[in-house]
Amino acid sequence: MGQPIAVRTFRVDLGYDGSAFFGSQRQPGVRTVQGALESAAERLAGEPTRVALAGRTDRGVHAVGQVASLRIRWARSADELARALMALTPDDLVVYGAREVDERFHARFSARWREYRYFVWEGPVPTLMRGRVWVVRTPLNLAAMNAAADAFIGRRDFAAVAGAGVGVPWSGIDTTRTVSLARWRIVDQPFERHDRSGRLLEFRIRADGFLPHMVRNIVGSLVAVGRGDRPIGWTEELLAGRDRRRGEAPAPAQGLVLWRVAYDDDPDGAE
Amino acid sequence: MGQPIAVRTFRVDLGYDGSAFFGSQRQPGVRTVQGALESAAERLAGEPTRVALAGRTDRGVHAVGQVASLRIRWARSADELARALMALTPDDLVVYGAREVDERFHARFSARWREYRYFVWEGPVPTLMRGRVWVVRTPLNLAAMNAAADAFIGRRDFAAVAGAGVGVPWSGIDTTRTVSLARWRIVDQPFERHDRSGRLLEFRIRADGFLPHMVRNIVGSLVAVGRGDRPIGWTEELLAGRDRRRGEAPAPAQGLVLWRVAYDDDPDGAE
Repeated sequence: MGQPIAVRTFRVDLGYDGSAFFGSQRQPGVRTVQGALESAAERLAGEPTRVALAGRTDRGVHAVGQVASLRIRWARSADELARALMALTPDDLVVYGAREVDERFHARFSARWREYRYFVWEGPVPTLMRGRVWVVRTPLNLAAMNAAADAFIGRRDFAAVAGAGVGVPWSGIDTTRTVSLARWRIVDQPFERHDRSGRLLEFRIRADGFLPHMVRNIVGSLVAVGRGDRPIGWTEELLAGRDRRRGEAPAPAQGLVLWRVAYDDDPDGAE
Repeated sequence: MGQPIAVRTFRVDLGYDGSAFFGSQRQPGVRTVQGALESAAERLAGEPTRVALAGRTDRGVHAVGQVASLRIRWARSADELARALMALTPDDLVVYGAREVDERFHARFSARWREYRYFVWEGPVPTLMRGRVWVVRTPLNLAAMNAAADAFIGRRDFAAVAGAGVGVPWSGIDTTRTVSLARWRIVDQPFERHDRSGRLLEFRIRADGFLPHMVRNIVGSLVAVGRGDRPIGWTEELLAGRDRRRGEAPAPAQGLVLWRVAYDDDPDGAE
């Protein structure tokens, strides 16, 4: 018998095409991101190994900036761990890299802020962006959507845009969050012909934390403003009312991407 | 019994995600683009209806600019035909539109030129462009690739880059084509973080016609130059040699998109 292998803590940066995952969180009998990572880690360590994820994503939601922390018996380098996890996980999950971190690091609890992006294709159905965008066939007023988005910026009570039973006063969950960015812009895309009508709209939203369905509910309310179904001032009223039942239907999962999670010790200085 | 419904000729513009199609051309027992369109057209017309496609695409190759011509018994408008075809074809096939054309119009034989685009992702594996790009992990010299691409421009014999048995002198097929554009450029993309390494390269190639595997063989040879495995002058030698066996392996199907087919009467003036 050789030296016992020490338990070390790693941060793993990953992404996934959410189309074929039943969300990020482990559930028995279905394909989840946490399940795929824990199965791979268990094969590498030879023992059950828990993986914590920075952000919970619903079924169908994508990620290019998910972060995992894991404590694992591993004798080789962080790069070798990243490659081994990549090899043992499905093709629709990508491991961007891994590095060893302080044992107090926790992907979820150590996070400073999170950014999501939401993609809307305004125009006729596109071919190669299918499953990555919400297709909205009516013209959208981008200036109105940005004006209405301002209501969400700052330290606010987001009960009115929280899903899954959180948006009712008696649930007892603190629904206050601080949003530092909420902005629409037109972005270029390479996969659809520019001589046809259609444009790709990207919504960026950054906060210290997000409630369940919060981004999709916010996008649903802003697209209602963009279509002209609601006035610009309505989002402010909606928030003040603190009642989810007054809101619009959430935007579909397929347009949502967990873009980035920032930590105090990010090598690129974050922001 | 009412008036008999007349047979009319329509041009249908369409696209598809090629991932789950066994190519464009009808084959018994497998899922093809022509098969999907003909099944839909037969249901609409109540009789077998043949559909001709402008370009043949291999299994896994995508299209945003495919054109079909069909002669069909149809009493309603071209827009209604487009909507009906869209409703009766699978979700990974998109009908952009339809219009009635002269009965002499044939999607393949009336075409003036065709453009393909090929997408290379230079960098670590991306998440949300999976199945749309060829991932090349080694750095590529774009200037060298463009210099080497110049060899393919003009009226040339493309036997050296023709696949499927065409590239041998005794096959008897005319392998002369006229290429008017063959150019690489860096394009922006919305689905991967820009703070990570990686860039999207797009190759545009336009010709009066293409031989089987011609674009993928050309891309394979140019990426070999970009990697430094072959000198810039090699593509000229390759073409002059007229021998497919001296070439590089074809680039994978998933990065290739049939982008556009141009006709004399295009409403947007073509070019």
